[in-house]
Amino acid sequence: MMYVAPSTSQPIRAVVFDTFGTLVDWRTDVAAAADEFAQAAGVEWDPGSFADAWRAQYQPSMEPIRAGTRGYATLDTLHRENLDAVLDELGIAANTFDPKNLDQLSSVWRRLRPWTDVTGGLDRIRADYLTGPLSNANTALLVALSRHAGLRWDVVLGSDVFGTYKPERRVYRGAASLLGLDPGEVMLAAAHNDDLAGAAAAGLATAFIARPFEHGPDQRTDLFADGPWDLISSSVTDLASLLGC
Amino acid sequence: MMYVAPSTSQPIRAVVFDTFGTLVDWRTDVAAAADEFAQAAGVEWDPGSFADAWRAQYQPSMEPIRAGTRGYATLDTLHRENLDAVLDELGIAANTFDPKNLDQLSSVWRRLRPWTDVTGGLDRIRADYLTGPLSNANTALLVALSRHAGLRWDVVLGSDVFGTYKPERRVYRGAASLLGLDPGEVMLAAAHNDDLAGAAAAGLATAFIARPFEHGPDQRTDLFADGPWDLISSSVTDLASLLGC
Repeated sequence: MMYVAPSTSQPIRAVVFDTFGTLVDWRTDVAAAADEFAQAAGVEWDPGSFADAWRAQYQPSMEPIRAGTRGYATLDTLHRENLDAVLDELGIAANTFDPKNLDQLSSVWRRLRPWTDVTGGLDRIRADYLTGPLSNANTALLVALSRHAGLRWDVVLGSDVFGTYKPERRVYRGAASLLGLDPGEVMLAAAHNDDLAGAAAAGLATAFIARPFEHGPDQRTDLFADGPWDLISSSVTDLASLLGC
Repeated sequence: MMYVAPSTSQPIRAVVFDTFGTLVDWRTDVAAAADEFAQAAGVEWDPGSFADAWRAQYQPSMEPIRAGTRGYATLDTLHRENLDAVLDELGIAANTFDPKNLDQLSSVWRRLRPWTDVTGGLDRIRADYLTGPLSNANTALLVALSRHAGLRWDVVLGSDVFGTYKPERRVYRGAASLLGLDPGEVMLAAAHNDDLAGAAAAGLATAFIARPFEHGPDQRTDLFADGPWDLISSSVTDLASLLGC
C-alpha cells in the first residue's frame, strides 16, 4: 500500500531522511565526547554549551559553499574547522592540544546514537519504500554513522554527491534523479522546518518528525511543524504508521 | 583483521563490487524474460542468443559517453535503446510491439538473481569491510537490483554519481573519494579483467572472481585472471575467506 502525498498528488516511492537531530541525538554524544576530552586535557568547559557552540557553527560554515564563494568541502572538514573556531571563541588556542586528539574529538560526529524509535521505524518503512539518508553529511561520514547507529538503507545520499548543501534545490532534485523518481514521488522526513521548506520548494513531499530535545531541555526552535507538510509525526515509528507500514 | 593488498601496501577498508556477471547471472534471467516475451508476442528467437545480442550492445553503447561525444545517459536508458537495436538486428520492427511491453522486458535488468554464493559472501565481507556495488548501472537500477537480489550494502555507487562509465579513471577515484579513503585502501572485486585493469591503473587493489558461465556454456573470455590482481577467487564466499572474514 502506497501513501499518496496531498502536496504532490503522487504515490510516494522513497522516503529520505535528514540525519543530525532527526535520526541521531548529536547533542548528548557530542557533549559527552567534549567532556571526556576536557577531563583528559585538563581544561574546563560546560559540555552541553560546548556542543551547542560547535553546532552553532554548522549553518554559517556551509553558507559560502551554498553561495558558491567557496568550493565544496566535506562536513567532516567543516566539523574540524568549526572545532578550532569554538576553541577560539572560548579563548583556548587550538595548538594547546595534540592535533590527533582534536581529530579524534571531531570524529565524534561519525559515532552518534540514534533516538530510540529510529532503527525499528526505519526498518518498517524500508519494507514498503526505498529509504536513504539525504543529509548535509558527506558519504563517508554517513556510512560510518549508519554502521555505528545500525541504520539500514537502500542508498546513501551524501552532500558530496551533489557538491553543495541543503536547502539548495539541486540537492533535493538530484536525490530524486538518482532514485529514478519524480520529485513528487520522494518524501523528505526531517525535524527542521527550513529543510522541509527547501524540499517542498523543490517539489518533494514532506514529513515533519518532532524532536523537541534535539537542542536540549531549553529548545525554542522546531518544536512544531510550521508549514503545510504532508505528514506530522512524533517519531520514525509514528511516521511508519502514518505511511501505512 | 584487515587484509593488506600487495599492490598498494595498504590495509583494505572497503571492497566494491562489479555487478552484472560478477554478482548476478544476467544471461539466465534475461534469456528467460526474452523467451516469455516472445511467446506472449507470438514471435520466435533463441532466448540465449537474444540475451547475448543484447549484452553485446552494452560496451559499444557506453563508448560515446566515455569519449565525451554523448552526454551521460543511464544504463536503464541504454538497455532500452539497445533492445531496439537487437530487434532491428533480428529484422523485427520495434513498433510491432506495445512500447509498454518493451519497457517491461527492458526492466528485466533490474530483476536478476545473484549467483548462489553472493548474498552469504557479501554479508561476511561486510562484517569486516565497507561494501558497495561499483557498477556501470545507474543508482536507481542498482537499488532495485539490490532489493530484488537481497544484496545488503553500506553504500551504492552508480555510474550516474560519476557521470561516466568504467573503466574511466574518475569512476574508481571518485568511489574512493566518496568513501573518504585512499584509492589503495579500496579493493575492486570483479569477474572481468578489463575492469580490474582500470581499477589497478587508478590505484585500487583488485580481486578477480571467476564466473566461467557468465556468458553461458561456451564462454571464451575472462575464464581466468590475466593480470597481477591481489586476490584470485572462485566465488564471493571464497573471496571472504581470502580476506580473512
